[in-house]
Amino acid sequence: MFFASDNGGPTHPQILEAVTKANEGYRSGYGADAEMDRVRAMIRELFEAPEAAVYLVATGTVANSLALATLCQPWDAIFCTPLAHIEEDEGNAPEFYTGGAKLTLVGEGDKMTPEQLRAAIAAKGGSVHNPQRGPVSITQVTERGRVYSLTEIEALCGVAKEFDLPVHLDGARFANALVALGCTPAEMTWKAGVDAVSFGGTKNGCMGVEAVIFFDPKHAWEFELRRKRAGHLFSKHRYLSAQMLGYLTGDLWLQTAQQANANCDRLAAGMRELPGVEFIAEPQANIIFAKMPRALHKRLYDAGAYYYLIEGELEGDDPDELLLGRFVCDWSIGAEGVDQFLSAAKG
Amino acid sequence: MFFASDNGGPTHPQILEAVTKANEGYRSGYGADAEMDRVRAMIRELFEAPEAAVYLVATGTVANSLALATLCQPWDAIFCTPLAHIEEDEGNAPEFYTGGAKLTLVGEGDKMTPEQLRAAIAAKGGSVHNPQRGPVSITQVTERGRVYSLTEIEALCGVAKEFDLPVHLDGARFANALVALGCTPAEMTWKAGVDAVSFGGTKNGCMGVEAVIFFDPKHAWEFELRRKRAGHLFSKHRYLSAQMLGYLTGDLWLQTAQQANANCDRLAAGMRELPGVEFIAEPQANIIFAKMPRALHKRLYDAGAYYYLIEGELEGDDPDELLLGRFVCDWSIGAEGVDQFLSAAKG
Amino acid sequence: MFFASDNGGPTHPQILEAVTKANEGYRSGYGADAEMDRVRAMIRELFEAPEAAVYLVATGTVANSLALATLCQPWDAIFCTPLAHIEEDEGNAPEFYTGGAKLTLVGEGDKMTPEQLRAAIAAKGGSVHNPQRGPVSITQVTERGRVYSLTEIEALCGVAKEFDLPVHLDGARFANALVALGCTPAEMTWKAGVDAVSFGGTKNGCMGVEAVIFFDPKHAWEFELRRKRAGHLFSKHRYLSAQMLGYLTGDLWLQTAQQANANCDRLAAGMRELPGVEFIAEPQANIIFAKMPRALHKRLYDAGAYYYLIEGELEGDDPDELLLGRFVCDWSIGAEGVDQFLSAAKG
Amino acid sequence: MFFASDNGGPTHPQILEAVTKANEGYRSGYGADAEMDRVRAMIRELFEAPEAAVYLVATGTVANSLALATLCQPWDAIFCTPLAHIEEDEGNAPEFYTGGAKLTLVGEGDKMTPEQLRAAIAAKGGSVHNPQRGPVSITQVTERGRVYSLTEIEALCGVAKEFDLPVHLDGARFANALVALGCTPAEMTWKAGVDAVSFGGTKNGCMGVEAVIFFDPKHAWEFELRRKRAGHLFSKHRYLSAQMLGYLTGDLWLQTAQQANANCDRLAAGMRELPGVEFIAEPQANIIFAKMPRALHKRLYDAGAYYYLIEGELEGDDPDELLLGRFVCDWSIGAEGVDQFLSAAKG
Repeated sequence: MFFASDNGGPTHPQILEAVTKANEGYRSGYGADAEMDRVRAMIRELFEAPEAAVYLVATGTVANSLALATLCQPWDAIFCTPLAHIEEDEGNAPEFYTGGAKLTLVGEGDKMTPEQLRAAIAAKGGSVHNPQRGPVSITQVTERGRVYSLTEIEALCGVAKEFDLPVHLDGARFANALVALGCTPAEMTWKAGVDAVSFGGTKNGCMGVEAVIFFDPKHAWEFELRRKRAGHLFSKHRYLSAQMLGYLTGDLWLQTAQQANANCDRLAAGMRELPGVEFIAEPQANIIFAKMPRALHKRLYDAGAYYYLIEGELEGDDPDELLLGRFVCDWSIGAEGVDQFLSAAKG
Repeated sequence: MFFASDNGGPTHPQILEAVTKANEGYRSGYGADAEMDRVRAMIRELFEAPEAAVYLVATGTVANSLALATLCQPWDAIFCTPLAHIEEDEGNAPEFYTGGAKLTLVGEGDKMTPEQLRAAIAAKGGSVHNPQRGPVSITQVTERGRVYSLTEIEALCGVAKEFDLPVHLDGARFANALVALGCTPAEMTWKAGVDAVSFGGTKNGCMGVEAVIFFDPKHAWEFELRRKRAGHLFSKHRYLSAQMLGYLTGDLWLQTAQQANANCDRLAAGMRELPGVEFIAEPQANIIFAKMPRALHKRLYDAGAYYYLIEGELEGDDPDELLLGRFVCDWSIGAEGVDQFLSAAKG
Repeated sequence: MFFASDNGGPTHPQILEAVTKANEGYRSGYGADAEMDRVRAMIRELFEAPEAAVYLVATGTVANSLALATLCQPWDAIFCTPLAHIEEDEGNAPEFYTGGAKLTLVGEGDKMTPEQLRAAIAAKGGSVHNPQRGPVSITQVTERGRVYSLTEIEALCGVAKEFDLPVHLDGARFANALVALGCTPAEMTWKAGVDAVSFGGTKNGCMGVEAVIFFDPKHAWEFELRRKRAGHLFSKHRYLSAQMLGYLTGDLWLQTAQQANANCDRLAAGMRELPGVEFIAEPQANIIFAKMPRALHKRLYDAGAYYYLIEGELEGDDPDELLLGRFVCDWSIGAEGVDQFLSAAKG
Repeated sequence: MFFASDNGGPTHPQILEAVTKANEGYRSGYGADAEMDRVRAMIRELFEAPEAAVYLVATGTVANSLALATLCQPWDAIFCTPLAHIEEDEGNAPEFYTGGAKLTLVGEGDKMTPEQLRAAIAAKGGSVHNPQRGPVSITQVTERGRVYSLTEIEALCGVAKEFDLPVHLDGARFANALVALGCTPAEMTWKAGVDAVSFGGTKNGCMGVEAVIFFDPKHAWEFELRRKRAGHLFSKHRYLSAQMLGYLTGDLWLQTAQQANANCDRLAAGMRELPGVEFIAEPQANIIFAKMPRALHKRLYDAGAYYYLIEGELEGDDPDELLLGRFVCDWSIGAEGVDQFLSAAKG
């Protein structure tokens, strides 16, 4: 009953097999492996972007930071929501990698509207004294489990383009969003106006690999220098490549995302039937944020469920007080895992 | 006949098995996995350092950079040799991670003497205008394949201590040096005066894992913050831990280093018998730097040998011109691989 | 009729005289001048802080940035208001100098309350993933011309101390606030819990000099290294010292602040009588933010008044639309200057 | 008898007068003052560079650092001599401002040859692992008081152009060099291939002002953003402008340099007649490096002469031991000052 994160479960066997298969003979290091050639070709085809610059790194934090650093200058503002991973959960990595760009918060929660974005951008720049206007970073799936529609992404990118600013998409849960929207990777990115993507693998079944994709290859060499300077260029790069190869082969990445989303649907459906449960946002991908009475949380914790309380303390006098929990479903949890949780909830 | 690098060969099966074995069930992320508890205990025991702070990262460049950043201030000088990996091969990563510390070069090649180090340190500091005196970084095995003796390390650390400066040891090839010296990890590090170690796994049979060890645990929390801020804290950390676990279990790490060094001995012995070959330094671990006539290099390249020419061009008129080649033996190359190379050399 | 800024007027003659007087003979550079010894002693006495570390720099931006960089770590959050000069008007200098600390915005405008500050601090830190809790920066006079009372400063510092965090006071208009409160420098700073002060001279009659004061001298050497590394240590330092000497001698600094505040009082009193004028905050020092009908703004601009429109455009159809203007009084403007403006306003 | 530095003497009266004259009425801040318009025009005319971007800052360290940061990337190497001010005397400011570029040392002393430079550049770059090739920085007058000839500068710039690299000239003593060479500013800079200049005023009679000049105006906006972000944009900028105005008016800057060089010539001529004095380089501008017997140094110190011993200790047994002293003549020292020193030396 592990619902704490989508980084807690095992790697999908197909990915480990790809790693094992790549463990033969000698390879040139640092991204010059044959596996990487295949990965690059597959991602370009998947995104219908034959010119795209494609790179692999091992963590989502550095994927975001290196992408943003490549798209901006240290005197810029980066526009994101207050709940964005780059703002809250990356230990000032974006500031470190950009040389001190300023994260400027748009909206109140996990999503921004075009109007909010336009106002935030307009309020920056204007003179040498102010932070200059820099990239917009959109998180898809958001940090509250919601999914921007294609129309919403297009509108946000449209605002960025009004100001001639680039757009980054933090796709740590890219696959979960894509499956939820039922669209193509190209539609969710460059066709909507996105310039660079952090294309997540780690949360969706890999050991630790993310692709960074620039649709305009002019950024390629700068990215390579930044990655090296950060110590994020792997000498035995084939093991990153092999993970991504296993992930993409036979559309495994879409299958694992579908499983995770389906697990989440099943969990949400069950939770709706529990008394006193309130979703703070309609679950759309593989994460649920729900308020539940303290007594229910206690019952679940006592039964061994593992998830995070985002607001409120488990210990307290009032059994009916509503506490906010976060429930993340990864690909591996299965219908049984969900049902076990729901049984425990019913007591 | 791959002698280009010790990052080109496969991962040792025992390490991949450890990774596969760790791929069961759920784990807390970010270093809170049970495998890491075991790794920490094993490394502390191995180094006879029960209080040591022990961390894992995926590349040698970041191990060095984070260790140095933790030991120094941005206005400091870091003392190293002109051939040090941190100076030549890390794309200004040490400068990036330290916030602009200055690498100050000691000696002329791959090793420094205590006298050279003392003079270099004495020439820094003195006023607010000058770069201040910061950490000393020693590379063991050196970038020319040589090994500092324990006496040499003690002497260099002694000079650092005269100025109350910390010492970092870049041990990307720690195991190869240890096997060459026949001493204990403690003797080669803290007993000699070393404060922090980059303890390499990648070049010696792992996929990609290095430990950073501080013998004084006061550096622990700062290191953790620095690692996170760099995007080098792995969410699915168990896969780093498992590699290190496989590496240390049953002294595999010493076996692979012994194999690599033995391969190198065999290669060196064979090369000595070839006409016109000159070692620029006596091989002591798993790397040979040798000058050989152009004609010999050509014969080897034509036969499919893969290694780097460090000085000189393969194409040229004079078949007798001596060109400097670097020959690296990893654990996997085997006596057959060496003999195949030597046969090709003999034509 | 120059009300655009308190950096537009001339330097007070007494300060230029002090500079001219210092222009005799030879001096040791870099702060070792005799004038600096006197400045240090005077500021220590003024602040009743005999151990304080006292330094001079030439701009307010660098005074703030160096003070904050000395008080925090790059992985920290710095707590300030959304209108703070460090957030809006310093071109990401705080991020540059701190190595990427994150400015975290408290409250909605120019002031923060203890409750807002406590909530903002509590929301940071907690794990290695989050920005850590760092210094609080208070602006006195605020960017909307308001002055925190001693009780308010004590309360904010009290919240900082609950979390063991240091407090910086951006006193670009320190003297204007002090005169408005009628308290001592010690009461407005360390007695209230402030740890470091940017003590402004430039806006109050100097050419370009600010003191940075740390009440705990442990920060001294680090500050000196940071100032040097920034190119902000003046070789001919006596000209900074002399300005500050002229500024402090005979309490000139309090006189010029009193003049500026009195000019502002006179201007505010006159503006209150103009039809359609609304203050967005009660003027307390030397700056007024007032909404006035477009027609009135036009009349003033046509008459040669120079000040900034903060919101709204001078050109527009509706003569009655209220546009927000900022009116800053420096020490030199005089009753005549104010009356000239008011006459122009009356048409 | 102050020969310690050219930053110890007074400001030239004409410059103080210009400052005083500028102290009338109101000005727009931050470089939009009328004085700056005149300065820009004068410098463009002086350098025969009508398109040049011209900026003022207050210290030589930041002039160099901002110029270099604008010309390079953080992963670059900057080529300079081991004795360069940017290497030895700026507290890692170049590394700070460039975001961690690596100063790569060329030659053994204060000058580099084209051959040394070509070899140093050729040794960098080549792959993503290595520091990339960045700007060349030439110091004119050198840190040992020597002056590059125009032919030498052209040759060094020629090497830089072979690799398509920009050239920066650290002209803290630009005027002293120019007077020594008897050439035009254009000849010593862009006509020889220099791209950016730190044009010093402080050491040659100003209070504290340096111009940064880019002959290609494409760097203008980036420089302005960098200067602001560094807290080096003065609000009351007219006082920087006025200094430079006073400095340039009526060729004062050439007069003060001629005086300083003439003082130095007189001093050198006198020192040549003293027994046991050896120049380590032929004095060409306003600085002498001379070895003198300890007894002579002692006599001078006892008589109140103030200058630096660069090598050796004043106290010691051997009265004949040669100790290296540095003797700097500023514009103000006068023939009497020199003669007083020489009298003291004769005892």
